[in-house]
Amino acid sequence: MRIRLDIAYDGTHFRGWARQPGLRTVQETLEAALGRVLGGEPRLVVAGRTDAGVHATGQVAHVDLDDAQRERVRAGRARGGQGEDAVSALATRLTGVVGAYSDVVVTRTLEAPAGFDARFSAVWRRYAYRIADAVAGYDPLERHRTTTVRARLDAEVMDAAARSLIGLHDFAAYCKPREEATTIRTLLEFDWHRDEQGVLVANVKADAFCHSMVRALVGACVAVGEGRLGRDDIVEIRDSRERVPEVKVLAARGLTLTEVGYPADDLLEQRAEQTRARRALP
Amino acid sequence: MRIRLDIAYDGTHFRGWARQPGLRTVQETLEAALGRVLGGEPRLVVAGRTDAGVHATGQVAHVDLDDAQRERVRAGRARGGQGEDAVSALATRLTGVVGAYSDVVVTRTLEAPAGFDARFSAVWRRYAYRIADAVAGYDPLERHRTTTVRARLDAEVMDAAARSLIGLHDFAAYCKPREEATTIRTLLEFDWHRDEQGVLVANVKADAFCHSMVRALVGACVAVGEGRLGRDDIVEIRDSRERVPEVKVLAARGLTLTEVGYPADDLLEQRAEQTRARRALP
Repeated sequence: MRIRLDIAYDGTHFRGWARQPGLRTVQETLEAALGRVLGGEPRLVVAGRTDAGVHATGQVAHVDLDDAQRERVRAGRARGGQGEDAVSALATRLTGVVGAYSDVVVTRTLEAPAGFDARFSAVWRRYAYRIADAVAGYDPLERHRTTTVRARLDAEVMDAAARSLIGLHDFAAYCKPREEATTIRTLLEFDWHRDEQGVLVANVKADAFCHSMVRALVGACVAVGEGRLGRDDIVEIRDSRERVPEVKVLAARGLTLTEVGYPADDLLEQRAEQTRARRALP
Repeated sequence: MRIRLDIAYDGTHFRGWARQPGLRTVQETLEAALGRVLGGEPRLVVAGRTDAGVHATGQVAHVDLDDAQRERVRAGRARGGQGEDAVSALATRLTGVVGAYSDVVVTRTLEAPAGFDARFSAVWRRYAYRIADAVAGYDPLERHRTTTVRARLDAEVMDAAARSLIGLHDFAAYCKPREEATTIRTLLEFDWHRDEQGVLVANVKADAFCHSMVRALVGACVAVGEGRLGRDDIVEIRDSRERVPEVKVLAARGLTLTEVGYPADDLLEQRAEQTRARRALP
């Protein structure tokens, strides 16, 4: 039995998603909570391994249960709310374990459809990046998830620049290199708007992201918005496949994983096989 | 010379506005910052003395400057941004002192018009109160400014109940009593809506508020939204002028002072005199 978990967290006080000895991470916190509810040593597989300080409102993970754990899920039904099935009630029970006003929450649990793999079945990830510039002003109540830039940024120019990067390309110029890992990605959406408070919000969607890619892409747009780079420069930088000092990797604080996309249920297994095969290539 | 300061803060790590020996408060933090920039011992007069844990996006205060401090404001002009006058530049200099990503910020400074008194000239205060119930779900990124209620609340019934309390009344049933202080207030606006995320947001506006009044008023509405009290009950409770255990004073965490209203400049002094006279009555 495989359970899908939808997860939200404030990344400020986590050292990222992935387990690291002696450090507080989202994975470690949730696996400990699952262990308390279900016993054993549950292991989570996640769609997006976020870095230290990065937030999530729409993270997705899965966990496989053995027979004993499955029995403990069923036994929890009685404790769930009215009309809740045993698997849905698991989210409520996990909330009880992590406590009120926790910085991480499981917003939903459901039995995963056949072939579902939180990581390998995913067809796209969506992030938001928030910047308060001199136009927006500084709001202390949003400081944990908004990066401050002193300049007055040109949102229209940034939006046009962002859209010019869309498509299937080698994004090596906007990635921290990792050995044997491809930097070819399909950037599906990339645009900027100001929200009601004037905060600049980037919407960034791709099939997958290489390391620090979103934070470098938004850094390139800020350079354009400040007039330090021209709109065409950031396409040329991309096509040079070389990292340049003008493109700063912006702080984790402004970044939130908002959504993970999966195909229709009957395509889940096929998608997972394709992804695994592609990642296995040298 | 009197300066008006517009102020925003995340109240989570403050023990409220007002100075208290040995405790971190907003007043103490800002007066220390003003002292570093201007010298002397500047003292702030504030529109709304918020309790521990209460936030503000639209707090207003004033400070009176002596000749030496006035000279230091003028001397700061050179350090201000392009086109900034010396008084406006003071806000920028204070931001430099409190530091990047501080939980308090002076969003604006300007020379106060004649007769302006941040406290006594104010004609109304507006607060917002945010509640995440079972419909909204829990968002860790908003936890510092949102109160969680487990039940599923009826927003329409709460809105109707809130509106039924509007008007000039004795709100003793919804105030923590203080000796010699009147509890007669004019509640100008009180309504509820769900925002885009489903969070219940109360808008509460009055000429002034007695102690813990907003948190008791929203507590009464939650009792109605849960079905523990009827809509008419909360008017009856108000008119009884007696506090009742069914009305819980909700947590400070959900409360934000969003706006303070002042009359047109030529009425500022008259309003301040009226308010002082009224408050001085036994």
